[in-house]
Amino acid sequence: MQAGSEQLGSPCEQLAPLLHGAEAANRLGISVAAVLPAGGSGERMGGGTPKQFCNILERPLISHTVQAFERVTWIRDIVVVVTEDNLDLMKSIIQQYGHSRVTLVEGGATRHRSIFNGLRAFAENKPLGFQLSKPEVVIIHDAVRPFVDEDILFKVTTSAKECGASGAIRPLVSTVIASTPDGCLDHSLERARHRASEMPQAFAFDIIYQAYLQCSDYDLDYGTECLHLAQKYCNKKAKLIEGSPDLWKVTYKRDLYATESIIKDNLLQQVCIITDMKEDTVQVGFLLHEILKTQVKQVKGISSSLCKNVHHLQNMFTEQCFNFIGINDKDSNFFGTQHIVDVLKSTSLAVLYPVVLVSVHLIVSENMSYSSRVEELSGIRELAKEAKKKNILVYGLLMDYTKDNLRLRETVTQGTTVITALIKDRSPGLIGQMLVV
Amino acid sequence: MQAGSEQLGSPCEQLAPLLHGAEAANRLGISVAAVLPAGGSGERMGGGTPKQFCNILERPLISHTVQAFERVTWIRDIVVVVTEDNLDLMKSIIQQYGHSRVTLVEGGATRHRSIFNGLRAFAENKPLGFQLSKPEVVIIHDAVRPFVDEDILFKVTTSAKECGASGAIRPLVSTVIASTPDGCLDHSLERARHRASEMPQAFAFDIIYQAYLQCSDYDLDYGTECLHLAQKYCNKKAKLIEGSPDLWKVTYKRDLYATESIIKDNLLQQVCIITDMKEDTVQVGFLLHEILKTQVKQVKGISSSLCKNVHHLQNMFTEQCFNFIGINDKDSNFFGTQHIVDVLKSTSLAVLYPVVLVSVHLIVSENMSYSSRVEELSGIRELAKEAKKKNILVYGLLMDYTKDNLRLRETVTQGTTVITALIKDRSPGLIGQMLVV
Repeated sequence: MQAGSEQLGSPCEQLAPLLHGAEAANRLGISVAAVLPAGGSGERMGGGTPKQFCNILERPLISHTVQAFERVTWIRDIVVVVTEDNLDLMKSIIQQYGHSRVTLVEGGATRHRSIFNGLRAFAENKPLGFQLSKPEVVIIHDAVRPFVDEDILFKVTTSAKECGASGAIRPLVSTVIASTPDGCLDHSLERARHRASEMPQAFAFDIIYQAYLQCSDYDLDYGTECLHLAQKYCNKKAKLIEGSPDLWKVTYKRDLYATESIIKDNLLQQVCIITDMKEDTVQVGFLLHEILKTQVKQVKGISSSLCKNVHHLQNMFTEQCFNFIGINDKDSNFFGTQHIVDVLKSTSLAVLYPVVLVSVHLIVSENMSYSSRVEELSGIRELAKEAKKKNILVYGLLMDYTKDNLRLRETVTQGTTVITALIKDRSPGLIGQMLVV
Repeated sequence: MQAGSEQLGSPCEQLAPLLHGAEAANRLGISVAAVLPAGGSGERMGGGTPKQFCNILERPLISHTVQAFERVTWIRDIVVVVTEDNLDLMKSIIQQYGHSRVTLVEGGATRHRSIFNGLRAFAENKPLGFQLSKPEVVIIHDAVRPFVDEDILFKVTTSAKECGASGAIRPLVSTVIASTPDGCLDHSLERARHRASEMPQAFAFDIIYQAYLQCSDYDLDYGTECLHLAQKYCNKKAKLIEGSPDLWKVTYKRDLYATESIIKDNLLQQVCIITDMKEDTVQVGFLLHEILKTQVKQVKGISSSLCKNVHHLQNMFTEQCFNFIGINDKDSNFFGTQHIVDVLKSTSLAVLYPVVLVSVHLIVSENMSYSSRVEELSGIRELAKEAKKKNILVYGLLMDYTKDNLRLRETVTQGTTVITALIKDRSPGLIGQMLVV
C-alpha cells in the first residue's frame, strides 16, 4: 500500500503483489540493512514542522517511508537517524505505528554526519549497549521519499554487491546552468548527458564506512552526495540505475499535497461490499457491485454472516482493502454496522490508514416517521464518533428501495456517486452524516 | 486567484492585491508580449492527454496559466503555440473561459521550433492576415507552469530590457551527475555552484528572434534552452533571477494532484455569510462568523437584502470570493438560496472556478413532519442539479436551533466543521445533500 505510481494510464500498478520477497532474499544470499537520515529541518517548507514529521492522512511522513522498508522482507535492520530534539517524537511514532525493525540513532549537524552516525551503529559498540550486526550491503535512503518500492531497492542492492556502490538516477526536468559570480549565465549543461542523482543508494558496507572514516571535515559539513565519497576515498565508481518518477523527494508543501493524493488514490482501489442475506439487500449489493466495478479496480462482495474476522475480508484482495460498504435493510438499526466496526477494530488494519465504512440503509416503506428518522441520525452519529477514535470513518447513506428495476438502478447509480466521493475524500469533517439518494 | 505559495507558514500570500499593474506598465514604458509553447505530448505522464490539457477543477491546466498572464495588465499579447491536432481544442478553451488577449499559433515538431513559430507571429505577415505588432520584450513561459506571478514576470522583463536576456532559476533539489558511457558515475557536480533553469524567461525581441533565425537545425531539433541560443548566437549573457518554488513545472501525475490542492487551498481563503434579517438567523450568522474566522483568512457577513448583485459581495473582499453560506430559517423554502444562486449565475464568477454555496436551514420547531423533510430534501436536490450546470456547487445543512446559548454554540461549531469540509473538498459527488448537525 506504499506505492504511488506516476503513470496516468496505470495509477496503481505498484499495488500488484510483490515479486521478490523471500525468494529475492535467497537469491541475494547477503545481509542487507538500511540507514534513513531524517535530521532535516524543513527550511524549504518555510519553517515549522520538518517535512519528515508532517502528517499524511494523520500519520507522519517518516512512518510511511519506514513502512515501505518494512514491507521488504530481506532488509534486516532499519536505522533511522534523527536530531536529539526529535528522538522522543520518533520513539512515539515507532510505538504508535508498530514499526518493529527500526533502531533509532541520534544525528549529527549535517546530512553526511547523520549518515555517518547511522553507519557507526553497525560498526562500533554503543554506550547504550546495543550493537547491530554489520551488513554486507547498506542502503541509504531519504526519510522524505516514501514511495520507494522493492524493485529499485533490489536493483541498487545487487549492483552494490557487484560494484561496491550504486545509486538511482532520473532524467533532469530542467536544464542545469552554471552562473558567473555576478549572477549571469556562464554556461548551460547539455541535458541529455546529465542526470539527477536520487535515492536509494546502496554500498558494500566496508566501502562506504571506510569512505566516511577517511573523509575531511569539509566533506562532512558541506558535501551532499554519498556516491561522491565512495568515488573520492575508495575509488569506487557507482553503478547508476534508472529509477521511476516515484522516487521524488518531498521538498515543498506541494509535495505533501501530492503525497496525500497519491495515497488516497491507492486506497481507493479496493472496495468490499457486505450484505445480510435478505432479498432486498442482496439485490442492491449486486447492483452496487456492478456499477462500482466500472470505477474501482477491485470490488468484492461478502455475506455478513461470513464476516466474522477481518482475515476473511482481506483474503479476498491481492492488497489490503480499506473501504467497506455495509448494506442493511431499514430494521437492522445499526447492529450490522456495529458488527463490522467491531471486526475492523479487532485488527490493526486502521493503524496505518483511515478505513472508510459506508453504512447503507434501505427505505422500504414510505411511512417512516420523523422520530424514527431522528433516531437513525443520532444512531449513526454515536457509532461514527466511537469508530473515529480507532481511525474508522463511518458515513451513512439512506437509499430508497423499490421493486421497479429501472428506478432502483438509477438510485444505486446515484448512491455509487456519493459512496465514491466519500471514499475518495476520506473527510473526517463529514463522519456520522446520513446522506440520502 | 492564480498563485500557489509553497510556504507552510503563509499558504496564500500571493493572493494579496497586485502591486504593479498599470503603475508597473508606466514604469516599464515598453511593450511586452508573451509566448507560451504548449506543444508537449505528455510522454512523462505515461501517454494520454498532454498535461497542459489535463483538467484542474474541471478546467484545462493551460487555461489556468493563460489566466495568470491575463491578470498582468502590462502584457499586451499572449501567443499560445499548440500542435495542429490541438488547435480546435485550444480554440474552444479560449472561448469557454473567455480568454481575450490570446492569439493561437500552430507549433513545430520540437519545443524550439514551436517557440520560433510563436515569435514569427510578431515578425512576419501570416497567411491568415493577422500580424501582431512587434514587442520590445517578449516573455517565454511554459504552459504547464500555472503559478507564475506578476512579481517574477516584472523582474525578468526589466532585466531583459537592461541585459537583453533574463531567466528564472531555482536551487537544485538533487545533485546532478555526469555518467560514463557504460552507466557508471563519472563525476558529480557541486550543487552550490549550479542552478536549475526554470521559466519564465524574457528577451529583447530582436535578440531572441535573431538567435532563432541564425541557429542550426540541430539546435532547433535537440536544444531545450532559450538562454543558450541568446548566448551562442547573439553573445548575450542572460541575467539570472532567483524565482520562488511556485515556478515548478507540472511534469508528472503527482504535479496535477499538487496543482489541484494548491488551488483548492487558495479558494478556501474567503467565505461570505449571507443572512436574512430574522433574529435567529442573524444570531447563527454571527456565531458562524466568529468560529469560521479562526480557520479561514477572510470571513464577511452581509444581509440578503443587500445581496442584489455579486459586485456587492465581491467588493467586500481583497480577492474574489468563491464560497458562500446562506442562512435561512426553516420556512423560507429555498427562496433565499435560489436568490443567491441567481445572483451568482448572473455573473462570470463561476466560469473560472467552482463556486460553493452551503444552504443552512434552522430547525426551529421539533414538530417537523417526515413529509416536510422529504420535500426539503427534494427541494435542495433540484436546486443543486440546476446550479451545477453553471459550476455552482450547492450543499444543504440542517441545524438545530435553540435559545440555549451554550448548546447553540456547540451546534454551530459542529456546523462549521461540516461547512469547512464541504468547502475544502468541493466534491461534485455530494452536491444536493442535506447534511445535519
